[in-house]
Amino acid sequence: MREHYREELEDINACLVEMSNSVGSAMSKATTALLDADVALADLVIAGDEHIDAVRESIEERCFTLLARQQPVATDLRTVTTAMRIVGDLERMGDLAVHVAKLARMRFPESAVPVEVRPIFLEAGHVAHSLVTQVGTVIAQLDVRGALQLEKDDDLMDQLHRQLFTEVLSPGWPHGMESAIDITLLGRYYERFADHAVSVARRVVFLVTGERDMAALHH
Amino acid sequence: MREHYREELEDINACLVEMSNSVGSAMSKATTALLDADVALADLVIAGDEHIDAVRESIEERCFTLLARQQPVATDLRTVTTAMRIVGDLERMGDLAVHVAKLARMRFPESAVPVEVRPIFLEAGHVAHSLVTQVGTVIAQLDVRGALQLEKDDDLMDQLHRQLFTEVLSPGWPHGMESAIDITLLGRYYERFADHAVSVARRVVFLVTGERDMAALHH
Repeated sequence: MREHYREELEDINACLVEMSNSVGSAMSKATTALLDADVALADLVIAGDEHIDAVRESIEERCFTLLARQQPVATDLRTVTTAMRIVGDLERMGDLAVHVAKLARMRFPESAVPVEVRPIFLEAGHVAHSLVTQVGTVIAQLDVRGALQLEKDDDLMDQLHRQLFTEVLSPGWPHGMESAIDITLLGRYYERFADHAVSVARRVVFLVTGERDMAALHH
Repeated sequence: MREHYREELEDINACLVEMSNSVGSAMSKATTALLDADVALADLVIAGDEHIDAVRESIEERCFTLLARQQPVATDLRTVTTAMRIVGDLERMGDLAVHVAKLARMRFPESAVPVEVRPIFLEAGHVAHSLVTQVGTVIAQLDVRGALQLEKDDDLMDQLHRQLFTEVLSPGWPHGMESAIDITLLGRYYERFADHAVSVARRVVFLVTGERDMAALHH
């Protein structure tokens, strides 16, 4: 019984890592769909969200069953409740990839991203992918150092977000109001995606160290 | 022991209701701060978020302790895991009130909301307050019918959100790009606030009925 229980805990963890891979792949595809106005790719992301939601449900139910049958305590209990939270963040990251894909779809055959801000979205897509990859490692290895690094890398996303506003608010911005609204929303989606990655990292840090205040560990 | 346990479950539920009241009050204050450019009120909302975060932490820890010591099963276990999720939604609703307050603060002494869209934000504030009040009732009474109603009322927020875009995109919009960006973000904050209210309602419905698909219950 106990051995099965240990395996089940490890397997739930492996599912979380896989889920973070799925979410990362969804966001990368969504970014490409956005930049290249690739509607087929956007549709793939939108359709794929059902799978991500199903994985979330499955992990939640497995955690619930494990709580009910095995009644874990101490660190094992904390591991299960942490997993139940992390799936929520990952699912939301998948939703945000869908939001990006839907906006790409809405502006087809144009790209929602004018040339002036294309480098910023290229970079945002890159940072998003890097963050979600780090999330996978942090979960797989309960890697506190990686979690702290991840929070620093999130600052890059905040910088990109500010750059976007500078571009859109520059006096020569030629793309009008609709495009400004699109870019504001897109910027928000990428920023929230990064925030959820940080949230996962914080949950892992709390699980391992019992510390909620990441600043206290940055030494 | 068991009697204490039942009391503890009820008390956690009462804390959730109180937390939804705090969050509702924060969003109402934030809306007033926004419409009247009331910076003192905005500061109150921003400062008050620490309390909401502390309540979340406290509820989470109580749920965890209850799981560890009492090892509930079946419906009681589902009640505790649901509470652990609901606090996450409520905390996020508090964050969104803070976002509204911060935007009000940033534009002070102006109001971030031009007269053309003032009625829409008045209505959005009203709907937000109504939704969070319903959330309190749904949690307190495990009220499935109320939860279904709440989801319908969320449609109002989506309508308001669309109206906002129509206003900002109208050819005569005189307030420029910065204002358009503000309104886009504000619209998003109210919409997300409502989404989280719906999410709480869905969790309660799932707790009571075991049904995740709300559409299946709308008959």
